[in-house]
Amino acid sequence: METLSEHAERLDTEDQLAHFRDRFFIEDDFIYLDGNSLGRLPLDAVERINETVTAGWGTRLVLGWDTWLDEGARVGDRLAPLIGARAGEVAVADQTSINLYKLASAGLAASGQKNILTDAGNFPSDRYVLGSIAEAAGGRLVTVPEDPTIADLEHHLDGTVGLVSLSHVSYRSGAMHDGAQVTACVHDHGALMLWDLAHSVGSVPVDLDAWNADLAVGCTYKYLNAGPGAPGFLYVRKDLHTELEQPISGWFGHEDQFGFADEWTPSRDIRRFLIGTPPVVSMVGVDVGVNLTAEAGVEAIRTKSVALSSFFIDAIEPLEGEGIEVITPRDPQLRGSHITLSHSNGFQIASALRDRGVIPDFREPNLVRFGFTPLYTTFSEVAAAAAILMEILTSRSYESFPTARTGVT
Amino acid sequence: METLSEHAERLDTEDQLAHFRDRFFIEDDFIYLDGNSLGRLPLDAVERINETVTAGWGTRLVLGWDTWLDEGARVGDRLAPLIGARAGEVAVADQTSINLYKLASAGLAASGQKNILTDAGNFPSDRYVLGSIAEAAGGRLVTVPEDPTIADLEHHLDGTVGLVSLSHVSYRSGAMHDGAQVTACVHDHGALMLWDLAHSVGSVPVDLDAWNADLAVGCTYKYLNAGPGAPGFLYVRKDLHTELEQPISGWFGHEDQFGFADEWTPSRDIRRFLIGTPPVVSMVGVDVGVNLTAEAGVEAIRTKSVALSSFFIDAIEPLEGEGIEVITPRDPQLRGSHITLSHSNGFQIASALRDRGVIPDFREPNLVRFGFTPLYTTFSEVAAAAAILMEILTSRSYESFPTARTGVT
Repeated sequence: METLSEHAERLDTEDQLAHFRDRFFIEDDFIYLDGNSLGRLPLDAVERINETVTAGWGTRLVLGWDTWLDEGARVGDRLAPLIGARAGEVAVADQTSINLYKLASAGLAASGQKNILTDAGNFPSDRYVLGSIAEAAGGRLVTVPEDPTIADLEHHLDGTVGLVSLSHVSYRSGAMHDGAQVTACVHDHGALMLWDLAHSVGSVPVDLDAWNADLAVGCTYKYLNAGPGAPGFLYVRKDLHTELEQPISGWFGHEDQFGFADEWTPSRDIRRFLIGTPPVVSMVGVDVGVNLTAEAGVEAIRTKSVALSSFFIDAIEPLEGEGIEVITPRDPQLRGSHITLSHSNGFQIASALRDRGVIPDFREPNLVRFGFTPLYTTFSEVAAAAAILMEILTSRSYESFPTARTGVT
Repeated sequence: METLSEHAERLDTEDQLAHFRDRFFIEDDFIYLDGNSLGRLPLDAVERINETVTAGWGTRLVLGWDTWLDEGARVGDRLAPLIGARAGEVAVADQTSINLYKLASAGLAASGQKNILTDAGNFPSDRYVLGSIAEAAGGRLVTVPEDPTIADLEHHLDGTVGLVSLSHVSYRSGAMHDGAQVTACVHDHGALMLWDLAHSVGSVPVDLDAWNADLAVGCTYKYLNAGPGAPGFLYVRKDLHTELEQPISGWFGHEDQFGFADEWTPSRDIRRFLIGTPPVVSMVGVDVGVNLTAEAGVEAIRTKSVALSSFFIDAIEPLEGEGIEVITPRDPQLRGSHITLSHSNGFQIASALRDRGVIPDFREPNLVRFGFTPLYTTFSEVAAAAAILMEILTSRSYESFPTARTGVT
């Protein structure tokens, strides 16, 4: 009978996306399963960033703005097909929390209501940002249980909720919503829908247009491999552009940015949601990552993602009874591209894995997340990670590691 | 008698900062007088950015966050002495307009008033951002004449103004305020003072501590040479940290960022004013630029800046009568590091200069700005620029250029 590693090797041989791994800068020996936090470095990014620094900044100097100025909208247009959006509906800019702030503030104000709904398992930054917006509006953040069902949402959509914001794929459980169904439910109750696509974009199909979504934000440094702290993106459905007023009236959002008029007149297109000068060097990584993802195709990525995560779940099945719980849905249609294990010694286990060269991440209070990035993760890596995890758990070697967070990630 | 260019050569020979030019990547033939918009590329930045991309992102991957996470506060500490601030009072983050939004919102709310005061010549993005904050608070933006005197300010500080925000050096005229005097006046009238240091930092002495300033923001891609769209910075005087609540409750501002608590508890230090993940690659340029500026010393930079701008004014004196007006104060104590000329054919003149390899910039409606960056601008460049300007004006060769903006900068 085929061993786990033989099985993995066979799957790697059959993998249609295998050659994409060669497009990444890989000089480490890590089994890197944290692309859901920070994606690997594409080789194109090394070259393109260096070119932007020397041939762009260094040589064209201020004249470089001829091309950089609209880069946020241009890269947004290239990103749009990855999330089922149309050209002119997406811009790359700022950080995800800032984009969430802009769109959620604008959406809530336009709704005429004061309350925002999210779920208890949403990313903390989202919960904090949404909460302060609702409070500033004189309302409150209505928090439904983690990974809410349609019934959970309907139960709380009582007419006072003007905006619902959920993560399409949960950073915690990895559970994935049915975007069309949730959006329809939210609309039926008179609210606007704002999706956070941080853990979706580049790993699962997203079709904002088909969902009839209103607003979305997302992150580029996870599955899009755009680099640490690369700008996020925002989506506003075209017919809403002139309906919404975002709170930060920066010059990049002005109808005539260099007209320097006395009056604030917001742009009538997606630039209305921009604020200030984009970080050009960090923006290059977004363009590279988007192009690489588009080249591979989201459908092919999704197919391999499901295969990788299913392989991992099967491989660790012998661990049931070792205190491990897989909190991610077993049905691949209901999850994104990471698998989360819960264990009371989660922090120690994550540390022990890192010590052995396997890089997952840890999330409070006891979650160990394993992210699978189809562009570079191999089945052999997954098999090896599963084997090391089993060894650490059965030997209890994790017990020699600190029991709680002292560092930062 | 010594010619203009001989005089310039002599000054270059005597220039104590001359060797800093060798620290920049200069492969163009421009006479670059637009460092007040985008500073040149330091050689260290080429190396450090490449290292951060390959050895950092590429090799350390998510583990890189051990060092990147606090980079905004760490680089802020290094920047602090350049603006007379103490460690812990400055953070590098986001863009200037976002930082202005955060601090002005927080300051106005803390003041208990609803109106904000600025001047008609403040940078448009500042005016727009401040205006929307005041309106959202139910107040208005009180706009005093450009480059206001103390009397202008006093005339409008009527007790309803909770916050005053001015640019220390005007992007238009180059006029510089007396920071201590203005701050004292504002405080005397019960308002908080927020300085925009975009055109000051790295070119003129700033002493926020001595001025007793409350808040400040600034830009790093001008005289600090941090690169296109590099993050801005913010300053909050230490005793105000816990007094102020900024409106965007992102996870980087939480007291325990990775605790992922349900409740929003803002940090009690400068991180309270952060929001999201910093653009690590773009942040490197800030560190390099700050270090280079500190190495040269702001006092030495200021001395050369005054010499350069004075040299330029003297050199173009023969142009009086050619329709040119120097709108920048003649007294060097009253100006920053750029000189602005007004001419009804300003746009054409800027274009004609660029065509001859002299890079100033143009600002609506008729302003041509010449920025002098002591770290790399030579007196010979200034002499050559003045000679070319004179030639363009006396020959009227500018008349063959388009009369109005069609591009972006």
